[in-house]
Amino acid sequence: MDHTETDSGERQKSIEALREMIRDIHIAMLTTRSEDGGLRSRPMITAQHEFEGQLWFFTHADDPKVSEIVKQSAVNLAYANPEQDRYISITGQAELVHDRQKIELLWTDELEQWFPQGFTDPSLALICVNVSEAEYWGANRNQLRGIFQELFFETEQNLKHDRLKWTGTAS
Amino acid sequence: MDHTETDSGERQKSIEALREMIRDIHIAMLTTRSEDGGLRSRPMITAQHEFEGQLWFFTHADDPKVSEIVKQSAVNLAYANPEQDRYISITGQAELVHDRQKIELLWTDELEQWFPQGFTDPSLALICVNVSEAEYWGANRNQLRGIFQELFFETEQNLKHDRLKWTGTAS
Repeated sequence: MDHTETDSGERQKSIEALREMIRDIHIAMLTTRSEDGGLRSRPMITAQHEFEGQLWFFTHADDPKVSEIVKQSAVNLAYANPEQDRYISITGQAELVHDRQKIELLWTDELEQWFPQGFTDPSLALICVNVSEAEYWGANRNQLRGIFQELFFETEQNLKHDRLKWTGTAS
Repeated sequence: MDHTETDSGERQKSIEALREMIRDIHIAMLTTRSEDGGLRSRPMITAQHEFEGQLWFFTHADDPKVSEIVKQSAVNLAYANPEQDRYISITGQAELVHDRQKIELLWTDELEQWFPQGFTDPSLALICVNVSEAEYWGANRNQLRGIFQELFFETEQNLKHDRLKWTGTAS
């Protein structure tokens, strides 16, 4: 196995691990940077899509967060499952995607409650987050001590929480 | 009632509302901006302290997130209670505080699991977040439609989620 194949295999493993971690957490807090430098977040529903390195979200193209993303594409997605003491930080670059085919592909009927005009709504657009790094804090209920050591002792116990990182494509 | 008194009253109401919203959510995702411009978040336990405009967190002074905060103080705190469909975004400025009296004041014995050396640990410090803006999305389970309209229709239905904003002091 040459170097490229190893990298590609590692990337695929990271993708699958992250996919499992966020599978049951439908709502993420998306943090963007405003023009005044302030960081703001808002809950977003993750579109049902097999995670392969990008995360997709429905939006209206004229939403304030969209103009923030266009100006500064660096975002964070925080997925929290407090019941299971599971917390995931995803660092990435967001872009606004106007792709009617993709909108139709990712559309599910439950979205109609939030986008009552349906997927033909001309103001509908997608936010695609290209994931560059993900970090994970997790524990079973009876291992609570575990997470918080990871959480507060990043310097000394850096390996106790997992960081998944990949770049490039998985040809 | 003059203008100053009104502002002060409004601020106090905002503070109390936010205090109630986050009271039962002990862990927040704290997002900071790295030197490379990437946004990263990590779970943090909110110190037990009556909220009056600042939120406090224990940390080790040599933690990587501390150096990020020192360089770029703009942070976001995301509080999520998925069970109750409650999401809060807090925008603020963070500062590292080395104050042994404050550390002792905010210390609770449960923190020992994460800071086993206790509050006399010389590397222990506090992160103080001065809140400048908070936004809230919430609904009862049977009002689920509500949140997501707020969430996705920020432009048209701006008033459906609450934004609390204050500046200055409440003296």
